[in-house]
Amino acid sequence: MTQGIERIKQQELKNRIVSADEAATWIKDGMTLGLSGFTRAGDAKALPQALVKRSQSETFKVDIFTGASLGSDLDKLMAEAGIIRKRLPFQADNVMRKKINQGEFDFVDQHLSHTAEMLRNHTMEQIDVAVVEAIKITEDGMIIPTTSVGNSLSFVESADVVIVEINTAQPEELEGVHDIYSLAKQGERQPIPLTKTEDRIGTRGIPVDPDKIKGIILTNQADSPSPIVPPDDETKQMASHLIRFLESEVEQGRLTKELAPLQSGIGSVANAVFHGLLESNFENLKVYSEVLQDAVFDLIDAGKVNMASCCSITLSQDKMNQVFNDIDQYKDQLILRTQEISNHPEIIRRLGLISINTALEMDIYGNVNSTHVLGRNMMNGIGGSGDFARNARLSIFVTKSIAKNGDISSVVPMVSHVDHTEHDVDILVTEQGYADLRGLAPRQRVERIIQNCAHPMYRETLMNYFEEAKERGGQTPHMLEKALSWHTQFEREGTMRPLVEVKS
Amino acid sequence: MTQGIERIKQQELKNRIVSADEAATWIKDGMTLGLSGFTRAGDAKALPQALVKRSQSETFKVDIFTGASLGSDLDKLMAEAGIIRKRLPFQADNVMRKKINQGEFDFVDQHLSHTAEMLRNHTMEQIDVAVVEAIKITEDGMIIPTTSVGNSLSFVESADVVIVEINTAQPEELEGVHDIYSLAKQGERQPIPLTKTEDRIGTRGIPVDPDKIKGIILTNQADSPSPIVPPDDETKQMASHLIRFLESEVEQGRLTKELAPLQSGIGSVANAVFHGLLESNFENLKVYSEVLQDAVFDLIDAGKVNMASCCSITLSQDKMNQVFNDIDQYKDQLILRTQEISNHPEIIRRLGLISINTALEMDIYGNVNSTHVLGRNMMNGIGGSGDFARNARLSIFVTKSIAKNGDISSVVPMVSHVDHTEHDVDILVTEQGYADLRGLAPRQRVERIIQNCAHPMYRETLMNYFEEAKERGGQTPHMLEKALSWHTQFEREGTMRPLVEVKS
Repeated sequence: MTQGIERIKQQELKNRIVSADEAATWIKDGMTLGLSGFTRAGDAKALPQALVKRSQSETFKVDIFTGASLGSDLDKLMAEAGIIRKRLPFQADNVMRKKINQGEFDFVDQHLSHTAEMLRNHTMEQIDVAVVEAIKITEDGMIIPTTSVGNSLSFVESADVVIVEINTAQPEELEGVHDIYSLAKQGERQPIPLTKTEDRIGTRGIPVDPDKIKGIILTNQADSPSPIVPPDDETKQMASHLIRFLESEVEQGRLTKELAPLQSGIGSVANAVFHGLLESNFENLKVYSEVLQDAVFDLIDAGKVNMASCCSITLSQDKMNQVFNDIDQYKDQLILRTQEISNHPEIIRRLGLISINTALEMDIYGNVNSTHVLGRNMMNGIGGSGDFARNARLSIFVTKSIAKNGDISSVVPMVSHVDHTEHDVDILVTEQGYADLRGLAPRQRVERIIQNCAHPMYRETLMNYFEEAKERGGQTPHMLEKALSWHTQFEREGTMRPLVEVKS
Repeated sequence: MTQGIERIKQQELKNRIVSADEAATWIKDGMTLGLSGFTRAGDAKALPQALVKRSQSETFKVDIFTGASLGSDLDKLMAEAGIIRKRLPFQADNVMRKKINQGEFDFVDQHLSHTAEMLRNHTMEQIDVAVVEAIKITEDGMIIPTTSVGNSLSFVESADVVIVEINTAQPEELEGVHDIYSLAKQGERQPIPLTKTEDRIGTRGIPVDPDKIKGIILTNQADSPSPIVPPDDETKQMASHLIRFLESEVEQGRLTKELAPLQSGIGSVANAVFHGLLESNFENLKVYSEVLQDAVFDLIDAGKVNMASCCSITLSQDKMNQVFNDIDQYKDQLILRTQEISNHPEIIRRLGLISINTALEMDIYGNVNSTHVLGRNMMNGIGGSGDFARNARLSIFVTKSIAKNGDISSVVPMVSHVDHTEHDVDILVTEQGYADLRGLAPRQRVERIIQNCAHPMYRETLMNYFEEAKERGGQTPHMLEKALSWHTQFEREGTMRPLVEVKS
């Protein structure tokens, strides 16, 4: 199997082709691996699979660092195989999540812009082996990544050994879309010279010392497609509330019809919001985000979006077929960057992004929990939401007002875990409406959040909590013995709904 | 009284001198005032005092925006007079605090770098009248601020009307120390061209359209001195732990003996830490902070610090006498910037600051509460700690392990309010020791925090909580019905100490 060898343009590297199984033997117990991959896109696929296979006959554990979540069931397979000692900075797999919550291995839930900085500063263990998926290795020795860049540059820079997976299932025409910018150490670096979404500031691939490349694996396996979750009534309502809010910002002269570069988290709500923009009056939009989902390409097709910058492209099967078969059409409007640059506070603040991320729950004062179910169990991780929410022009969080058929209210007296403090949350959106919290004191936010965002079935009990708490006073009135009682009642009774008091 | 008139260098402005009482009549009910002042330094003094006087015969309310806390008892006097409708972004006065917690007026507790951006984006009400203390007005129409810059540039830019208080008690020799940089709107701005602590990037004063200056008040009142809190045994221990940590970073090659630019919050602990550096082996240090306290000048005198950038200088009476009588000696080593620049995420991340701030309480997973006593009552506000902690190279939080003679443990199972999430906290320090949390999963942090930072009298009960919570599993094991029980027991029993169980 030498399909793909023609994509190695440096002659002396051609004799480093190895099988995934052989390369897997280079991985020693206790090593730290840096794998390419960000939200199912561009993950190194063959080596992790070979490692899982090897674990059937051998016991070892490794630390797995990535860009974000992996596709191809890799997180599931590695978690099931029990080969993980530490995993960072993000995951989104059901099996892995269970093992994390059972304490089987350590999951370090990190701001996605921070991993690169920690590697550069040597404040975490360094990468022993970087495994990076590529569409090719160029004549001048650059690795051209595939559908994501993620942390691959940092992993290659940090690693002693680099393994490249040349994947012929990834379109070679992606070359030219990437923009790879390497930061100097803190204190020695210059300003990042990016002032517009469309600015290209780096190289077209990841520069690598060819001596570091110990092996090249030839693969032919497409990315996992994103599951298609079409907009439903509720996500459509959320989108329409959000667009109504943005329109009012334009009316008040705070934004123009071109808005500001848009960032959105991954998922059905974010995709629905972007779908909603198709019907809006906004124009010449720009996207400066982590992940591009289907809707962004619809917006490009419709002429609504004219530039999209990201560190990963994660599409449904149909959209993948369409976009990657016709990538030239989009090339001038796409830039794939490192996640350090897509999520960099310097850029987010400078460009003034409009940032839309998903909450698990929010409280009556505007604190947001994005990660922990019942304050305890990890869902996916904070991802980039913290990078964006802190530094964006507008920090918007969206969620449905209820879950589990109404037994859970997403608006609670006090969130059971805080990922985004009241200081970092501007706008909350549910299918009920939106609450604009900017410039408000905590007590002023309460009624707005409850009346505009909470489900009607929970509004009265939420207001009752606030009214009772107010009697004790405080900038942020709370009754600590009751603040988490909605959660504990749910654990006990299976519902947050007010229990009917039985009089004896 | 025309003392100070010679400091107005624009001839046509000399006829705008007014008394504070007259200027106070220009303030209408419902107006928003932007007052200079940052942690007792450089506050506009005469107009607020005149407003308080006027309130004895007239009822009105105003919104008061500042840089941070005010000196000269202004926050106390205004709060007592009942003339405040809204106050932001920070305060530190005992009387004002009580009124905030009684809900008498709205206190918007804001990241100190955010106010300027919100004014520029028109996402808060604009300033009707800016009142700015100055040492002079130059020939070319610039207001030269005094001992702080704070938000004065933004207030002058936003305001319809500017009132200048020329204070002859402030040393004219401060001219040349300020560096005033104005940012363009988000999306239209260039990178901030500051790559070293010592870089000067702006003008020597605040440019102002002279037509905006409605009145000039001549005053002669020194800043309130900072209360002297000399290092005690515990703050000395905290300083020595912190220095031990920094030394180990140098040993591991992560920092050089020059460390990295230092930021520290205000207060006795911060001052003690900086005092501790006098005896250390570090050299050629730089300070890039909000406020310079006494110890920084001792470090400059000792040749340990060669550059200090800030937005405010807050000194004890003795130090004030020494420094301001001999300001020329320090001039080359001092820069006073706007608080937007001293606290800007772009700069904090680029320079890679070592950031030291004070916690009220911390939990066993590393979340930090800096603002709310018992989750409810405002202490001072988040100040700049969030600007720094999120973006610094090292985010360090310090506090004594116990308070109220041991009835309060500063390390608790779950903090009652979160200002800094586990994602933004690297190092915790108490007089007991330090806990390095970098790259650790929540469960890994627990023992380190408890054993290194908690007071011995609370270690066992903290570990018991964790062990019991672990049985329920989770990335971050918690028992929500007990998570805040230490606080509720304190409210009920006056102590967090384990209660002796009486067997019946």
